Amino acid sequence: MTVARLGAIEAGGTKFVLAAGDGPTAIAASHTIPTTTPEETLSQALAWFQDQGPLQGLGIASFGPVELDRGSSEWGHILKTPKPGWSHCDLAGYFVRHLSVPVGFETDVNGAALGEHGFGAGQGVASLTYVTVGTGIGGGAISNGRLVHGAGHPELGHIYSRRDADDRDFAGTCPFHGDCLEGLASGPAILARWGATLSELPQDHAAHNLVAGYLAQMCHTVFASMAVETIVLGGGVMKAPGLLERVVRQARELGAGYLPKSEVRRIVPPSLGDRAGITGAMLIAQRAAAGGS
Amino acid sequence: MTVARLGAIEAGGTKFVLAAGDGPTAIAASHTIPTTTPEETLSQALAWFQDQGPLQGLGIASFGPVELDRGSSEWGHILKTPKPGWSHCDLAGYFVRHLSVPVGFETDVNGAALGEHGFGAGQGVASLTYVTVGTGIGGGAISNGRLVHGAGHPELGHIYSRRDADDRDFAGTCPFHGDCLEGLASGPAILARWGATLSELPQDHAAHNLVAGYLAQMCHTVFASMAVETIVLGGGVMKAPGLLERVVRQARELGAGYLPKSEVRRIVPPSLGDRAGITGAMLIAQRAAAGGS
Repeated sequence: MTVARLGAIEAGGTKFVLAAGDGPTAIAASHTIPTTTPEETLSQALAWFQDQGPLQGLGIASFGPVELDRGSSEWGHILKTPKPGWSHCDLAGYFVRHLSVPVGFETDVNGAALGEHGFGAGQGVASLTYVTVGTGIGGGAISNGRLVHGAGHPELGHIYSRRDADDRDFAGTCPFHGDCLEGLASGPAILARWGATLSELPQDHAAHNLVAGYLAQMCHTVFASMAVETIVLGGGVMKAPGLLERVVRQARELGAGYLPKSEVRRIVPPSLGDRAGITGAMLIAQRAAAGGS
Repeated sequence: MTVARLGAIEAGGTKFVLAAGDGPTAIAASHTIPTTTPEETLSQALAWFQDQGPLQGLGIASFGPVELDRGSSEWGHILKTPKPGWSHCDLAGYFVRHLSVPVGFETDVNGAALGEHGFGAGQGVASLTYVTVGTGIGGGAISNGRLVHGAGHPELGHIYSRRDADDRDFAGTCPFHGDCLEGLASGPAILARWGATLSELPQDHAAHNLVAGYLAQMCHTVFASMAVETIVLGGGVMKAPGLLERVVRQARELGAGYLPKSEVRRIVPPSLGDRAGITGAMLIAQRAAAGGS
């Protein structure tokens, strides 16, 4: 048995990544379980943590939408989600009750933003946005060195985009908004249009520049609205060869050299790779153990 | 002569508003001068402040783009601007040299955001975006109670919009981006399309819903990207009868009830009216006098 003191959960729609250790850079053990029903998934996670010995804090970075407001009776819950069975699941409360440890709770992308800011591509910058492009599109942000909270949390996937002139007919796949960014450029949107992933399509297929264009526009919007220094683009879709480079090039064209300090603004891949989220969840655990929220 | 201790400048593209007094809610004297050449405008402002007696701090909220980084040799300068003669004007440095007082320097919209947050429509909220819709479109934001800085400052007018299906031909008036938001919905863009202001067009003219739609989309983007609680919409264009109500309604439709905490998100007019900027500049002066930046 390890001498783990902190626990971390990256709660995703398809899998839960669990970790235990002394901190973000000292993960002693980790484990992955599939996301099935809340009852099954949470009890499996609990059993694994109980095998790790006593914890001093737990950090959760969860898929959303979630309630982040400590003053709300729904704090730590997943809110209304299309994912069957998970709406109003009291994710944080389950572990508060069963583990009796301080629990910190954030969105998955806020967790990844914390991880990349602390130990990855965003070290040393005061402002950063982490965006995942996968089954959905979501973003978490740090401004003046702190996570951006407010009325809930960002839902960056649901902004609208100027449509490409050659792409005005696709209705989009978002059940709420149709052709919002997620409805145009997420993994399911790409599959719905072309019957294949970007990685499966030849490099000269029009899909590459089209998807890159929408993601570039999102980056331009984030730069122009939040003035961040660094945008980290992660998630499964971003693993398509050449996509990041296309986004960087098109975002530069959209900016047209106008935005202040264009020279310090960067669009980069997550340098922690798939470990950004669990690293951030460990940071959240650290804060919870230290008495912060 | 007043016993003024603080000075404030709202530096706009058409006029400079000057104020002197004991604080944001104790403005003893104010004066407005037209924005002509930097030499003339700044010397007139200086002469007015010298008549107000010794100051302990000066706050400037300026049109942009500007350099906000205290570590930069261009701090306090206006950067490259289409406004003739003003590119690279050392606005803050002029008053540092001639008045020998601590000078605080912000964008005009950051100033207005501070004013509305401190004494206006945004009192009590932790996150707010102030947007002016006039000759240009610009936004300033407060997150976690602090102004959003980063790589320069936000340039919210230069995000792109999903074009209305009935409005795909207008090329837009922005010299940098064509049909960015400012190119579609600013005062000059409205004049260029319809030869009149919104206030001059009949209420059943299509222009009202079209412009409202682009501004609603911007509000949706701000809510989805920055998760702010309150958006304050000011500026000359927003004085058109019924426009704010149209924006509120269309933003609600665009959100489709999806964003977390929709019930606390508000789109409101500036409750300080045209005094938001100069009130914020006084707050900036207060901070400068107290040794902050």
